[in-house]
Amino acid sequence: MNNFTFQNPVKILFGKGQIAKISDQLPADSKILLTYGGGSIFKNGIYDQVKEAVKGFQILEFGGIEANPKYETLMKAVAICKEEKIDFLLAVGGGSVIDGTKFIAAAVCFDEADPWHILAKHAKITKALPLGTVLTLPATGSEMNAGSVVSRIETQEKLAFGSPLVMPQFSVLDPEVIFSLPDRQVANGVVDAFVHVMEQYLTYPVNAPLQDRMAEGILHTLIEEGPKVLANRTDYDSAANFMWSATMALNGLIAVGVPQDWGTHMIGHELTAYHGIDHAQTLAIVLPGMMDLKRQSKEAKILQYGERIWGITAGTTDERIDSAIAKTVEFFELMGIKTKLPDYGVPAETIAKIADRFEQRGFKVGEHADIGPEEITEILQSRL
Amino acid sequence: MNNFTFQNPVKILFGKGQIAKISDQLPADSKILLTYGGGSIFKNGIYDQVKEAVKGFQILEFGGIEANPKYETLMKAVAICKEEKIDFLLAVGGGSVIDGTKFIAAAVCFDEADPWHILAKHAKITKALPLGTVLTLPATGSEMNAGSVVSRIETQEKLAFGSPLVMPQFSVLDPEVIFSLPDRQVANGVVDAFVHVMEQYLTYPVNAPLQDRMAEGILHTLIEEGPKVLANRTDYDSAANFMWSATMALNGLIAVGVPQDWGTHMIGHELTAYHGIDHAQTLAIVLPGMMDLKRQSKEAKILQYGERIWGITAGTTDERIDSAIAKTVEFFELMGIKTKLPDYGVPAETIAKIADRFEQRGFKVGEHADIGPEEITEILQSRL
Repeated sequence: MNNFTFQNPVKILFGKGQIAKISDQLPADSKILLTYGGGSIFKNGIYDQVKEAVKGFQILEFGGIEANPKYETLMKAVAICKEEKIDFLLAVGGGSVIDGTKFIAAAVCFDEADPWHILAKHAKITKALPLGTVLTLPATGSEMNAGSVVSRIETQEKLAFGSPLVMPQFSVLDPEVIFSLPDRQVANGVVDAFVHVMEQYLTYPVNAPLQDRMAEGILHTLIEEGPKVLANRTDYDSAANFMWSATMALNGLIAVGVPQDWGTHMIGHELTAYHGIDHAQTLAIVLPGMMDLKRQSKEAKILQYGERIWGITAGTTDERIDSAIAKTVEFFELMGIKTKLPDYGVPAETIAKIADRFEQRGFKVGEHADIGPEEITEILQSRL
Repeated sequence: MNNFTFQNPVKILFGKGQIAKISDQLPADSKILLTYGGGSIFKNGIYDQVKEAVKGFQILEFGGIEANPKYETLMKAVAICKEEKIDFLLAVGGGSVIDGTKFIAAAVCFDEADPWHILAKHAKITKALPLGTVLTLPATGSEMNAGSVVSRIETQEKLAFGSPLVMPQFSVLDPEVIFSLPDRQVANGVVDAFVHVMEQYLTYPVNAPLQDRMAEGILHTLIEEGPKVLANRTDYDSAANFMWSATMALNGLIAVGVPQDWGTHMIGHELTAYHGIDHAQTLAIVLPGMMDLKRQSKEAKILQYGERIWGITAGTTDERIDSAIAKTVEFFELMGIKTKLPDYGVPAETIAKIADRFEQRGFKVGEHADIGPEEITEILQSRL
């Protein structure tokens, strides 16, 4: 096991009816900016529940944070926060709203330079507005971590930043929010969480059996519960198990003391940047290609994954790896997520553009930092 | 899954060499009381490492906190803290030193009444000194939770309290501290952690598959790694896996949204109070009797445990439960921990004394609150 530092102070309020408890979590006399997305919270009643819960606080609102939140949009909220002297941000939404709100929290307090430096140059953040969240879509894990991904229209870039200062003070996880989600969002959430686990698990062994088993526990739970949620949206327990799995998939705990990959995400982000494909869909496209290309360096872990998750024990090493990849694809497709580039109308020319972008950045990705433009081309060509 | 609130802000510094990083974690200009136990830290070099790490801080020392830390001893440290205006407590030791230091932290700031009320009457704690820990013995999980157990000589009582205010600010977990532990302490640590998991896992199903799998992951890891640590004290990876498992066993995470038992602990505490038997030994005595008596209300979970942990799938329900209990006993004995009352010279008369004490307290224990004096008598008689 590798050395590590771990700290995750996010307070989780989990279960039905927990939205009503928000007011106990908010600092007294604070002026709050309520942030949200495209307005689904008006239809499913969550907006009303939140407004009821925060009665008595001074509340301003900022809606319209889009999927893959845009820098341009978020900077408008930053201006409002400064003008209105906002003390606390309350994000009501999925990963995009929460990620966007984390960026707002950091950018409001960032006076050193252009806030774009937070994303483009990983400028150090020394202060941020406190924030809380009401999660409406289990998927990204943003509700219990320090990370955020923001896109910029102007440059077609999708970039990440992270800081303990933007970890939510609290996050409300009420599984009933899942009851009104469309199939596509459920499927995306399950696949997103699944691939988060894979990025932290499917690398190489460092003798960390507890982390492995926790990761496998999340995979098993997503495989069992995901289809149940898809089939019956009001099955509370399945919704709860899916929701808790998605949070546990990326709150840092399964990553302690082990190597991490994140190559699938880095490549996937470019597919979103160029073609607006849903984040989880990009992961479902890239991961099988990544497993195939990296079958040697990931061999031990792919075999363990195949055996423990899918019961694959027969055949040669290559056959077992092929089966593990096939089972992974099968699961994504079962959830309704296609796994090939043509399924999303992505032309072969995009591959060169993505490879070129990595060429320009000049660094390689993956747990061995050995995935560069050539490897990325190979991965994406295998997904045509 | 049941509703829950979870928050655990303890910062973990895990791995070899991490003791050297303590100074970064301590508040500047603080006056620190270093607390420790019987002096093993002088022999194994940990005291020297800690002293080197805190150079430049104003340090006072309080040694001699005993196993099952005594109220009488701890109150001496409370007096020192008040007199010397201590700002921060640094506990260097195992669960007893850390539990004792948590009590000191709370008692120093408790002016409302006799500090004994913190334990005897669960008096509300509104303030506590901040504390950090350097763990020298993986077992209790105290390094990453809010709980503490303290004994009083005068009344032969062993009582618990808990408060988020006494959660450590940070805990250093350096697996190399295990290299110099005697067999008995390793065995106690493994069994203690194992039973902590069982108290949170072996109840009744509430459809919480991820919590189950995480609990099972810890059990598997302890079963695999415990004997390796016992056989080869300087196997770093096994030491690290044991250490992280013991912390994860009682940091609150596997308990979210599920029922908990703790009956085995409540009964075990009395065996320590009357006979000074090591905490883990008392658990190894009581748990098999608890599983036997509660085979009906715990049936589903005992069968799941038997199958997933020990591969028991054949036989009638009762046969499978018997096998699961036998495997549990076998594991404790393999670790060198005896599981019957006569092994520790406990006479049959003690059983009536313990039952009488529960009679006087007037409440029952266990996940169904249905284990009272009669059931406790039955459990302990089965361990004669």
